[in-house]
Amino acid sequence: MNTRLAPVLSRIDADLDASLDRLMTLLRIPSISTDPANKADCLKAAEWLVADLKSLGAEAELCETPGHPMVYGKIGPKQDSGAPHLLFYGHYDVQPVDPLDLWDHDPFAPFIETRDTGKVIRGRGASDDKGQLMTFVEACRAWIAEHGEMPCTITFFFEGEEESGSPSLIPFMEANKDRLKADLALICDTSMVAPGVPSICSQLRGMLKDEFTLTGPTMDLHSGHYGGPALNPLREISNIVASFHDENGRVTVKDFYDGVEEVPAEILEQWKGCGFDEEDYLSGVGMSESHGEAGYSTLEQQWARPTLEINGLWGGYQGPGTKTVIPSEAHCKITCRLVGTQDPDAIRENLRAHVESRLPKDAKVTWNQDLDGSPAAVMNTARPEFEAARQALSNEWDREAVFAGMGGSIPIAGFFTTILGLDSMLVGYADDDDRIHSPNEKYGLKNFHKGIRSWARILDAVSKA
Amino acid sequence: MNTRLAPVLSRIDADLDASLDRLMTLLRIPSISTDPANKADCLKAAEWLVADLKSLGAEAELCETPGHPMVYGKIGPKQDSGAPHLLFYGHYDVQPVDPLDLWDHDPFAPFIETRDTGKVIRGRGASDDKGQLMTFVEACRAWIAEHGEMPCTITFFFEGEEESGSPSLIPFMEANKDRLKADLALICDTSMVAPGVPSICSQLRGMLKDEFTLTGPTMDLHSGHYGGPALNPLREISNIVASFHDENGRVTVKDFYDGVEEVPAEILEQWKGCGFDEEDYLSGVGMSESHGEAGYSTLEQQWARPTLEINGLWGGYQGPGTKTVIPSEAHCKITCRLVGTQDPDAIRENLRAHVESRLPKDAKVTWNQDLDGSPAAVMNTARPEFEAARQALSNEWDREAVFAGMGGSIPIAGFFTTILGLDSMLVGYADDDDRIHSPNEKYGLKNFHKGIRSWARILDAVSKA
Repeated sequence: MNTRLAPVLSRIDADLDASLDRLMTLLRIPSISTDPANKADCLKAAEWLVADLKSLGAEAELCETPGHPMVYGKIGPKQDSGAPHLLFYGHYDVQPVDPLDLWDHDPFAPFIETRDTGKVIRGRGASDDKGQLMTFVEACRAWIAEHGEMPCTITFFFEGEEESGSPSLIPFMEANKDRLKADLALICDTSMVAPGVPSICSQLRGMLKDEFTLTGPTMDLHSGHYGGPALNPLREISNIVASFHDENGRVTVKDFYDGVEEVPAEILEQWKGCGFDEEDYLSGVGMSESHGEAGYSTLEQQWARPTLEINGLWGGYQGPGTKTVIPSEAHCKITCRLVGTQDPDAIRENLRAHVESRLPKDAKVTWNQDLDGSPAAVMNTARPEFEAARQALSNEWDREAVFAGMGGSIPIAGFFTTILGLDSMLVGYADDDDRIHSPNEKYGLKNFHKGIRSWARILDAVSKA
Repeated sequence: MNTRLAPVLSRIDADLDASLDRLMTLLRIPSISTDPANKADCLKAAEWLVADLKSLGAEAELCETPGHPMVYGKIGPKQDSGAPHLLFYGHYDVQPVDPLDLWDHDPFAPFIETRDTGKVIRGRGASDDKGQLMTFVEACRAWIAEHGEMPCTITFFFEGEEESGSPSLIPFMEANKDRLKADLALICDTSMVAPGVPSICSQLRGMLKDEFTLTGPTMDLHSGHYGGPALNPLREISNIVASFHDENGRVTVKDFYDGVEEVPAEILEQWKGCGFDEEDYLSGVGMSESHGEAGYSTLEQQWARPTLEINGLWGGYQGPGTKTVIPSEAHCKITCRLVGTQDPDAIRENLRAHVESRLPKDAKVTWNQDLDGSPAAVMNTARPEFEAARQALSNEWDREAVFAGMGGSIPIAGFFTTILGLDSMLVGYADDDDRIHSPNEKYGLKNFHKGIRSWARILDAVSKA
C-alpha cells in the first residue's frame, strides 16, 4: 500500500466532475493558432491557463511573443526533496475546423457523448491537446489538495503555436534557458499504441513543411479561346505531384532516403507484441491494406519510414456547375515526415529542385518561405525515470506499458535536447481514432480520468527514482 | 449610296450614348446562371429584356422554364417582303466572377475606361454576351426608328442558361418548334479572329463536361498517425490527371480521336491569311510557345484539335499555414473541346472507364450526373446569306471579312440544326483579349458601336439576298 499515492488517486476519482468542468471551459475557447482571426481566442486560452495554474498555488505568468503567448508556471515542494525537477509541456492551441459541414456539432461547444464503448468528450482540442494537457494539471491539483505540496519541482510550459509551426518557440527557449532549466521534460501530446495499452514514446518522426504556387498564363483563360495552346497549371501540377513517388510508393526526390535506416530485427520483434491492431487501424478508416512503401509493414510505414504527403492541392473553379476556365495558378501544400537523421534543410532543397526541374517552359513556381522543419527524435529510454514511469503506467492500466514508436512529429522534443540539453519523456492517453485534426474530434472520458491518475502515479514514481 | 441603310447608320451614330446606357443597365444585373443565389437576378435580366423588346414595338414575353426563363420576341415588316425570316439568339446570363479579388472593380458596376487603344466597356458580361446581344437589339431599334418597320421578320430568342449547360434549352425548343420557325439563325456570341478583322464563324468545337470526386479514407486523417499507410486522394487524383495526356500532349483516353480529321491543306492555307497574330495571342497571356499537341499549329490546336482540360482540381487544406491532413476526398472538373464527329457520349464513357481503371484499391469515384455534352458544328457557308453578310461586314470594317474557325463551343448552333432544321450564321465582335470568363472582362466601345452598325448592314444585305 502506497500511502502517499493512494489518497491522491481517491481524490482524483472524487473530483473528476470538477476536473471535467475545467476542461470544458478551456475547450469552449476557439484557439485556432494558424488563423489570424482567432488571435484573441488564443490569448484568452493562455490567460485562462495562467489563472488555472495560479489556482494550484503555482507562480504563473503569460509571456508575450511576436505570435501567441507562452504560459509559464512553477511550483515546488516546500523543501528541496532531491527529486528530479520536471518540465511539463503541452499546447493550448488547436487545429482549424474545416470542413465545418462534416462536424455533427459546433466544434467549440463541447459535450459528453455516451457510446457503446463508453463516454467520450467531444470537441476540437478534446484530445489534441487541451484534454491531454489538463490530465497533468489535474494530477498536480489533486496532489497539492491532498499533500499541500508537490513531490518534486514542476515547471509548466504551455505553447499556443504548436499547430502552426511554433514560430516563437525557439527564440523564447533561447531567451529563457535559465527559467526552463530542469532534469527531464514531460510531454503529453501522444496516443496509446492501442486502446488501453499504456505507451511511452521511443521515437518520433520529424517534419518538413513546404508549399508552392505554380503559375502558367498571366490570367485565367477561357478554354474555348485558349484550350489547346495554353499551358494548364492544373495539369502541370498534377504531373509534378505524380512524379513525387515511384510505382512502389517510394519518394523519388533526390537523396530523400539519406539518413534513413532499416529498423533492427529485435525492435521489429518487440513492436509485434505492442498491441497494435493492424486490421482495426486500417479498417477503421476504410482501408483494406496499407498503401505506403512496398516491402514495409504498416507499423514500419507509420513509425519508421519517411513520407511525402500532399495536404492541399487546388486551383481553378470549385463552385457548382461548370466553368470553362484554364486557371492562371495552381497550389500545393506538402509535408514530409522524417526519420533517422534525415536533414529537413537538405530535403527542402532537393524537393524544390525536383519541382523546378520539372517545370515546362512558360511556367514558374513560387515557394512559401515561412514554413519550417524539424528532424526526427529518438528518446533516451535508458534513463531510470523511463522504467519508473513504465511501471507506474502498468499499475494504472493493469497491463504492461510499452515503449512504442510514433508516426507524428513533436518538434519540441528535439528542441528540448538541442536548446536546453534536456531529455524528454512522452506519455499520452489519446486513442488513434480520436479524429484529431479531423471533424468530430473526441477524447475518451476514461482516457482523461486514467490519464490524470497515470500522471499522479508517475509523479510518485519518478520523484522517488 | 444605299438610301435605305445610310440613315440607319447615321441614327446609330447619333444614338450611341443612349444605346450604351441601356447596355449599362443590363450589365448591372448580376445574372450568374450557375449559382442558385443569383436566380432572382436572372429573372430580373430576362424581364428587363422583355421590356426592352416591347419598347421596339416587338411582341415579347418571358417564358418560364424549370430553370431560368427564356425571352421570346417577334417583330416583322408591316407587309411580307419576301425577305428571309431571321431568328436571333443571344444569352443574358453571365459567368461567375470568382476569384473576386482579382477584379479591380465591382464586376456588376460597369463603367467606361479610356485606354491608349480606345475606350472599353468594363464589367462582367460586357463581352459575353450582353454587349454582343445588345448590338443586334440596338440595330433593330435604329432601323425601326428610321423606317417604322424591320426589313425582314425577326424572332428574338434569348437564353439565360448558356453559362450553366442550358438544361432547359432543348425541351423549350422541342415544345416551341413552330414559334421558333425561321429561315436562318443568327448568333452573336463569338469573337473576331484578330482586332478589326470582321469574322463569320465557319466551325465550332463541341464540348463534353464531366466532374468526379475520388474518395479514399472514410474521414480526413492526421498525417502523423496515418501518413505512410494511408491512401492519399490528392496523390491518386494527380496520378489520374497526369495520365490523361502523353508526352506529346495527346489525350490518352481510349478512342478519343475517333471522328477527328486533319484539316485540309487548302483550309490551312486560307487560315494563314485570316489575320490571326500568333505571337500576340500567345504573349498576351504570358506564353512564349504553344503547349498543345505536338505537330499542330497554334490555330489548329485552337480551332481544329480536341482538348481535355482540367478546369478545377481541389482537396485538402487551402487556408493559411499548414494542416497535416490526409483528406478523405479530392475533386476534379473536366471539359473536353470536341471537333469533327467526335461523339460526346462515347467519350464520356471512355473517360470514366479511363479513370475507373486507374483507381487503386480502397478508392472509389463518384461522377456528377448533371453535366451535358454537345458535338462540334460546321457552318453552311455556301448559303447566299453568308456571302451577303461577308460583304456587309467588309464594308463596315473596311477590311475583307473572313470565314474563321473558333475554339469555343456554342451548342445552340447544333440544336438549331437538329431540332429546328435551321442553319446558323455566327457573327460576333468580341476581341480575344476581352477576358471573358476571367476577372476584368471588357468589350471595346468601338466593337459595340461598329457591331450595331454591322448588324444594320447585315439586315439590309441579307433581307435582299
